Amino acid sequence: MNTPPRSPAERRRDTEHRLAHDIDLWVASASADGVPHLVPLSFEWDGETLLLATPAASPTGRNLAAGRTVRLSLGATRDVTVIEGDVEVLERDALPGERGDRFCARTGFDPREPTTPYHWFRVTPRLVQAWREADELPGRTLMREGTWLA
Amino acid sequence: MNTPPRSPAERRRDTEHRLAHDIDLWVASASADGVPHLVPLSFEWDGETLLLATPAASPTGRNLAAGRTVRLSLGATRDVTVIEGDVEVLERDALPGERGDRFCARTGFDPREPTTPYHWFRVTPRLVQAWREADELPGRTLMREGTWLA
Repeated sequence: MNTPPRSPAERRRDTEHRLAHDIDLWVASASADGVPHLVPLSFEWDGETLLLATPAASPTGRNLAAGRTVRLSLGATRDVTVIEGDVEVLERDALPGERGDRFCARTGFDPREPTTPYHWFRVTPRLVQAWREADELPGRTLMREGTWLA
Repeated sequence: MNTPPRSPAERRRDTEHRLAHDIDLWVASASADGVPHLVPLSFEWDGETLLLATPAASPTGRNLAAGRTVRLSLGATRDVTVIEGDVEVLERDALPGERGDRFCARTGFDPREPTTPYHWFRVTPRLVQAWREADELPGRTLMREGTWLA
């Protein structure tokens, strides 16, 4: 990467573009006794929260329901957006239908249909960071305690 | 992805190729009280173990030293290799010099140089899984309890 480090405004614009258009992200969760889990999942973004869906009985489903905290990454290992957030668990029928429909339209998958019980997981970001390589580590924090800095 | 699901042998070959040639992976770790962390790091693979390096005092460094377990992913969200492994922590000078040299040659970074204290983390895989999309979820487990199945 020979371009100079991006400004905070550029990083926020790139991050919001990715939130609005990407389909998948990486979901890191942990059990109460400190065993990490990591899977790719599809997501939807409404400008304030990310929506995920996974089987309630899966490791990620159990970890998120128990710990209510998640760390997500979007993009590639040298063009990263990392998000830490608070997790709200919703029964399949508890989400407004319109948002569920937007999730399906974006991801091509309807978590309300499988016979395996799915939950929705609504993530409110607390921390957002974006960096490409080491020269972008300074200034990587775009949101802290739920407030955009730039 | 319109290709048929890969055979176990194809998935293992693709996985070993990625282990031998990729530079970075995602590292999911957890604190003892269940807070997940996730960062991209560079790695080296000697055919049996993965070698990582990160500052001893970083969240990942502390989590791996305390929990001794890690979940790694390589590749993209729709062409995944996931590895769970046991973690051994090595002081900077405790690794055979040749292996440290291979790490530097591959990643372009020498963790023995920074003034910030780094540790090496040697990961022995217990579980390896590889899948692209939902049709490849059956048959995704390539290694279980440290033994390749195919």
